[in-house]
Amino acid sequence: MLELMQDEVFKAFSTYALIVILKMMLMSPLTTFYRFRKGSFATEEDVAFKPAEERKKLLRTHPDVERVRRCHLNDLENVLPFVLVGLFYALSGPELPAALLHFRIFAGSRIFHTISYVGAFPQPCRALSFLVGLAATISMAYNTFSQVFVI
Amino acid sequence: MLELMQDEVFKAFSTYALIVILKMMLMSPLTTFYRFRKGSFATEEDVAFKPAEERKKLLRTHPDVERVRRCHLNDLENVLPFVLVGLFYALSGPELPAALLHFRIFAGSRIFHTISYVGAFPQPCRALSFLVGLAATISMAYNTFSQVFVI
Amino acid sequence: MLELMQDEVFKAFSTYALIVILKMMLMSPLTTFYRFRKGSFATEEDVAFKPAEERKKLLRTHPDVERVRRCHLNDLENVLPFVLVGLFYALSGPELPAALLHFRIFAGSRIFHTISYVGAFPQPCRALSFLVGLAATISMAYNTFSQVFVI
Repeated sequence: MLELMQDEVFKAFSTYALIVILKMMLMSPLTTFYRFRKGSFATEEDVAFKPAEERKKLLRTHPDVERVRRCHLNDLENVLPFVLVGLFYALSGPELPAALLHFRIFAGSRIFHTISYVGAFPQPCRALSFLVGLAATISMAYNTFSQVFVI
Repeated sequence: MLELMQDEVFKAFSTYALIVILKMMLMSPLTTFYRFRKGSFATEEDVAFKPAEERKKLLRTHPDVERVRRCHLNDLENVLPFVLVGLFYALSGPELPAALLHFRIFAGSRIFHTISYVGAFPQPCRALSFLVGLAATISMAYNTFSQVFVI
Repeated sequence: MLELMQDEVFKAFSTYALIVILKMMLMSPLTTFYRFRKGSFATEEDVAFKPAEERKKLLRTHPDVERVRRCHLNDLENVLPFVLVGLFYALSGPELPAALLHFRIFAGSRIFHTISYVGAFPQPCRALSFLVGLAATISMAYNTFSQVFVI
């Protein structure tokens, strides 16, 4: 194992980063599941298994499929910045308890965000879980800037 | 602070990477701002605060909202590769002035790209700022390959 | 060159990560190429070079442009997780042959995925290449978890 991976904060960061990345990657099979269940496809060759007269009907959008896709895009917009900001934060030498707090709040907020989004929970469930995750990422960026700022 | 973060190039990279990531994250609240201002929402529970007869009318796309969303997607397509390519580049031991030049050109070009896109500046403002950022990223990839290439 | 970059696994990872990132970045110019070829634009200022009466006609979607865009989005959803998961994996001290196997399978599967998608190959070409890439990434995450798990 490389030296970097022997740091306790970096180990914890790796664990939580992998958890939220795997959660994000789960959205691809979930989209496929909804595409088949709702009969809503985007690409011609995906409906070739059906008789020719039904194909056109299946090439349409469906609100539930679009919902899962928006949730996936929202993950790309938030989980990837968390992992990248978290990388610099973990390298900037934070205390382990403070770092764990950031990682746990973010991971929890994003899991709840997905549940609220796909489950169509009433607002402000989704908005709040989004904001909590955003705040954790911005707090990590702020802490990193307070240690390292070379412009 | 971990050893990696004591390298001058890596410190500078962290700073610029965080700046462009934060700029990218700003697009989420900007989208929300335009959604409310233009009355254009994508998700049913987001319009539940309105009387039932107005809801359907608000579930529509608006060119200005779509413009901000395309700008956000363009950031995902360009800022994230910059941060990842830049990570390998910063580790490959470039000279500090050359590295700073790459980071500054990229950060400047992306900030100008967002202003041109959201402000609907006439072309080729947006195209040029996109190409300058792309060139900076490709130049970093080329420099890294010239140091490290194990296939 | 920093110490990290002298590790053989990390060097190999850098090479393959850069290859798949550059492949992903190629989708932007490819989209532009299809936009001009098919006369399908999304943004008003992009059609200002045309006479006023033709502009509206060019602001439309075209299936071939949307196909390239979906391929690009699929890359964001899969290549970026590969690079981030691979980073933790490369740091967790895998054997070089096992690591190279993961990197090569992923890079090969994504290159084939793009060819199948843009070339509209019959299914299950695209589905299989997607699944092989997903499996490589999940296998790397699993191997990292078996070395490092701090929750």
